[in-house]
Amino acid sequence: MLSYFEDKKAKISTYLKEFLAEKGTRFSTINTLGKDVCDRIYDFAIQGKMIRGGLVSLGFGMSRNGHFPKAGPEQMIQAGAAVELFQSALLVHDDIMDRDQVRRGFGSVFYQYARMADRAGIADAYHLGESLGICAGDLSYFLAFEVLSRLEVGPLIYQRIQKLVSQELAYVGIAQMQDIYWGASNGSVSDEEVLHLYLYKTGRYTFSLPLMIGGLLAEQSEHTLNLLEKVGEHMGIIFQLKDDEIGLFGDQSEIGKPIGSDIREGKKTLYYGLLQKRASSEDLARIAYLIGNPDINEQDVQYVRDLVVRLGIFEEVRNLTETLAGKAGALIPWLPGFKFEEREVMLKLLDYSLVRTR
Amino acid sequence: MLSYFEDKKAKISTYLKEFLAEKGTRFSTINTLGKDVCDRIYDFAIQGKMIRGGLVSLGFGMSRNGHFPKAGPEQMIQAGAAVELFQSALLVHDDIMDRDQVRRGFGSVFYQYARMADRAGIADAYHLGESLGICAGDLSYFLAFEVLSRLEVGPLIYQRIQKLVSQELAYVGIAQMQDIYWGASNGSVSDEEVLHLYLYKTGRYTFSLPLMIGGLLAEQSEHTLNLLEKVGEHMGIIFQLKDDEIGLFGDQSEIGKPIGSDIREGKKTLYYGLLQKRASSEDLARIAYLIGNPDINEQDVQYVRDLVVRLGIFEEVRNLTETLAGKAGALIPWLPGFKFEEREVMLKLLDYSLVRTR
Repeated sequence: MLSYFEDKKAKISTYLKEFLAEKGTRFSTINTLGKDVCDRIYDFAIQGKMIRGGLVSLGFGMSRNGHFPKAGPEQMIQAGAAVELFQSALLVHDDIMDRDQVRRGFGSVFYQYARMADRAGIADAYHLGESLGICAGDLSYFLAFEVLSRLEVGPLIYQRIQKLVSQELAYVGIAQMQDIYWGASNGSVSDEEVLHLYLYKTGRYTFSLPLMIGGLLAEQSEHTLNLLEKVGEHMGIIFQLKDDEIGLFGDQSEIGKPIGSDIREGKKTLYYGLLQKRASSEDLARIAYLIGNPDINEQDVQYVRDLVVRLGIFEEVRNLTETLAGKAGALIPWLPGFKFEEREVMLKLLDYSLVRTR
Repeated sequence: MLSYFEDKKAKISTYLKEFLAEKGTRFSTINTLGKDVCDRIYDFAIQGKMIRGGLVSLGFGMSRNGHFPKAGPEQMIQAGAAVELFQSALLVHDDIMDRDQVRRGFGSVFYQYARMADRAGIADAYHLGESLGICAGDLSYFLAFEVLSRLEVGPLIYQRIQKLVSQELAYVGIAQMQDIYWGASNGSVSDEEVLHLYLYKTGRYTFSLPLMIGGLLAEQSEHTLNLLEKVGEHMGIIFQLKDDEIGLFGDQSEIGKPIGSDIREGKKTLYYGLLQKRASSEDLARIAYLIGNPDINEQDVQYVRDLVVRLGIFEEVRNLTETLAGKAGALIPWLPGFKFEEREVMLKLLDYSLVRTR
């Protein structure tokens, strides 16, 4: 499974390298920051695993159906590169909102600028870093849209992809607003609200969107596109739920950040949503004190962990994950015209989502 | 002239009202912030004069040429609405970078959120406001791209418009990076660099882009598109130079902000670029002290004003403006197939750019 995505990542990286070098050369006739930001976006983009970008190819490969679409492997890589640029843009802005100075082991983009400004002796360097980071994120969106506009595919296909991408990114935007608002406030949040957020912030965007772009490029039927959408939603929510599980019950040395970060950051996970429903008023008061509190210790995290297990929430979320996996696993064989190799990759990705530990 | 743009503004506003109401209804199934942000974007967008949006219609009307493009007045309004949503997005992000709490007489979008968060008793309300503002700006970009993706025009036309828009917005992004970097730093900036910035930050974006969108929708020849691009560049730079003039020599009661704001904010205008070239080292030292200093008084502003006049810079910039106006005025009659009314509007807009006092 991973070799499939590694292969796509290598190709997407090559596309991005050439595209961003071309744009950087063009921008360097305007000012020096233009070339520089292209380099930073490239360095940032290639640090990810590029699962999203690879899913475009998977969505295409799965759904080939005896007909001959205008798009081929090259367009999958190109559209995958656009998807990765969108992801970079979202993360660049995300790091400003979360004040994350490190991302994927390197300085986050806004923080790179903040340090650059600081070295240049600029007062208020942090704010200039944030401002340049906002611009860099915006630029990454525009570059992604330009990559899409260069797609040599049937023009009606292209227009549908643009519409889909614009709509789904808008959903991510408002889900993100909700997420940061919840993170900053102390109000209670229900499990239904959390699952809704997961659907729009992670599920549809991370899985449905790239799979459907692949399906659209393969000129698939509405029926197949709907199936890809559904499979993506299930897998995306599984992915997020597993993220939550690893964040609370995982092995710190494996995931590279302290266990309990979600609690410290005040993140409203499904565990949180279910605790609001099941915990006693005494426990709720203690949770309210711990959530969003950066100073909690290992014992506090263990308390939350025990509570989640004792109240049956751990099992409930596990069961939900299994149910969703069952639904996704039942749909995959019904995707018209997919080949053995791609079906195997998809099922392995599903299995991986269930067992991964980081 | 203004009645032409007022008419377009009314129609664009109607389009935006319906579109954003539709999106708000869709978003309200996700969370409450989604509907709310659509309302805020609408309220924000309609506060502008919508010259950019109106220029799409002008670019179309000017260049009709005996053939019958698929697009008509309705598509001009729709594309104009997209252009205005892009503009709103840029301004929403701009206000975060400049820490502007007021825009067009109302609270800027991020500041509206900061106050909302403050009223809800959220600690760090200002930062949450910034974060929600980043999301709202991003969302406005995505909504603009969706409006474009709904254009019912020849699909190849649509793809070219998307490519053009993505490219030009990227230029604005890197010009903006330069602008805020200059604003925060004390380094010297040449007049050539300033003019280059004006070309990409204001000229091409504000005038060339909407005119060319109109030209593309009218399915015009490359020759005509090039002419529209050139006319736009000249008019855009004139517009910016006039802005600078009003900012230093204008009437405070007319423009609604203190004279000399550009100096206080450390903005690197063409006046600044030419002062670097012409001023004595003694004057340069005093300028270096004044630029970016929020505490300068009326006398300091008068000193800069006198210096700009005494060194012939005022006249030099005026002459440049006249030269550009001459070039634009010479091109407008050569635009193939334009009608009397649209030519008149264009020439009046040019005249207005030269004489406006706010």
